[in-house]
Amino acid sequence: MNTLSYAILGLIDKDQLTGYDLTKIFNDCVADFWSAKQSQIYTELKKLVAEELIEFKVVIQGEVLEKKIYSLTPKGKETLLAWMSEEEPPLPQSKDIFKLRLYFSENLSPKQLQEKFENRSKAVFALLLRYQTKLNEYCPETVAPQSAGDYLLLKGAVTSLESQLRWLEESLEFLNKLRK
Amino acid sequence: MNTLSYAILGLIDKDQLTGYDLTKIFNDCVADFWSAKQSQIYTELKKLVAEELIEFKVVIQGEVLEKKIYSLTPKGKETLLAWMSEEEPPLPQSKDIFKLRLYFSENLSPKQLQEKFENRSKAVFALLLRYQTKLNEYCPETVAPQSAGDYLLLKGAVTSLESQLRWLEESLEFLNKLRK
Repeated sequence: MNTLSYAILGLIDKDQLTGYDLTKIFNDCVADFWSAKQSQIYTELKKLVAEELIEFKVVIQGEVLEKKIYSLTPKGKETLLAWMSEEEPPLPQSKDIFKLRLYFSENLSPKQLQEKFENRSKAVFALLLRYQTKLNEYCPETVAPQSAGDYLLLKGAVTSLESQLRWLEESLEFLNKLRK
Repeated sequence: MNTLSYAILGLIDKDQLTGYDLTKIFNDCVADFWSAKQSQIYTELKKLVAEELIEFKVVIQGEVLEKKIYSLTPKGKETLLAWMSEEEPPLPQSKDIFKLRLYFSENLSPKQLQEKFENRSKAVFALLLRYQTKLNEYCPETVAPQSAGDYLLLKGAVTSLESQLRWLEESLEFLNKLRK
């Protein structure tokens, strides 16, 4: 079992879902801390059915369209719970080409460097707005226990992007001063 | 050419290095934003020599030990510079099992959740100390232009880990209050 299959079990545990629903969730709510391609998701769904960790019912939509709605089996719930209580792995390592290039920044002209920082800031800011909008839907005082994870993860994403933005601004300022 | 090969070109451009030096750098200075296994590094070195982007001289160390010291060829420098000025890719996506489990936190007991947060905080704190110690070697007022990238990346790592720690503390507090 890979982590993606546990992620799928966890999502189906929250709610009965179709493969299409799952793909949407991976592109949206979960995108900050896990990613999966549509083809991977459908491959995993087949495996999880074969292993009797999930099951599906077929629902007819409109005239001819069939869709499979997946739910967890008791064995699937057990497997999810066992994975949930496993020990945490080491901190994840990220790969970031922007930072790699900054490490070699003596090879960039001030103009090139400025452009790279501006583009990065724009990208971070756009993502920050997206998460901030979602976070604004919550009122911290009335978060339901079953939404606590979602809420905290959104807060984490916003906090992290805000600190990245500040770092980008301060770094560019520092480099500009250094090169004067 | 994959990103690892450009990373190797950039590092050899900074200084003439052996494969052993490179492995050490990947485990240390570069670890926050790129990772590579020793075997991958040696495979890339061979390819880069075959493509005439780097060359080496053999130096005898002690009685019998030979070591290869790599340096950039003019073609290698050109290739590095072309990559440096390429457009930035989209923001990197990270995969984080801790956050994935937090998303499914309704399946964890308060004690399990508390333990997960404490372990994560310990890991983040240990890494923060490591980067903070390195950052303390710099005096911001006298950073040399060729060290500006290193300095800013260390500062970025420290800023990010500090904001993660704050988020972990606040999140645990939030969850404890919610469950009372």
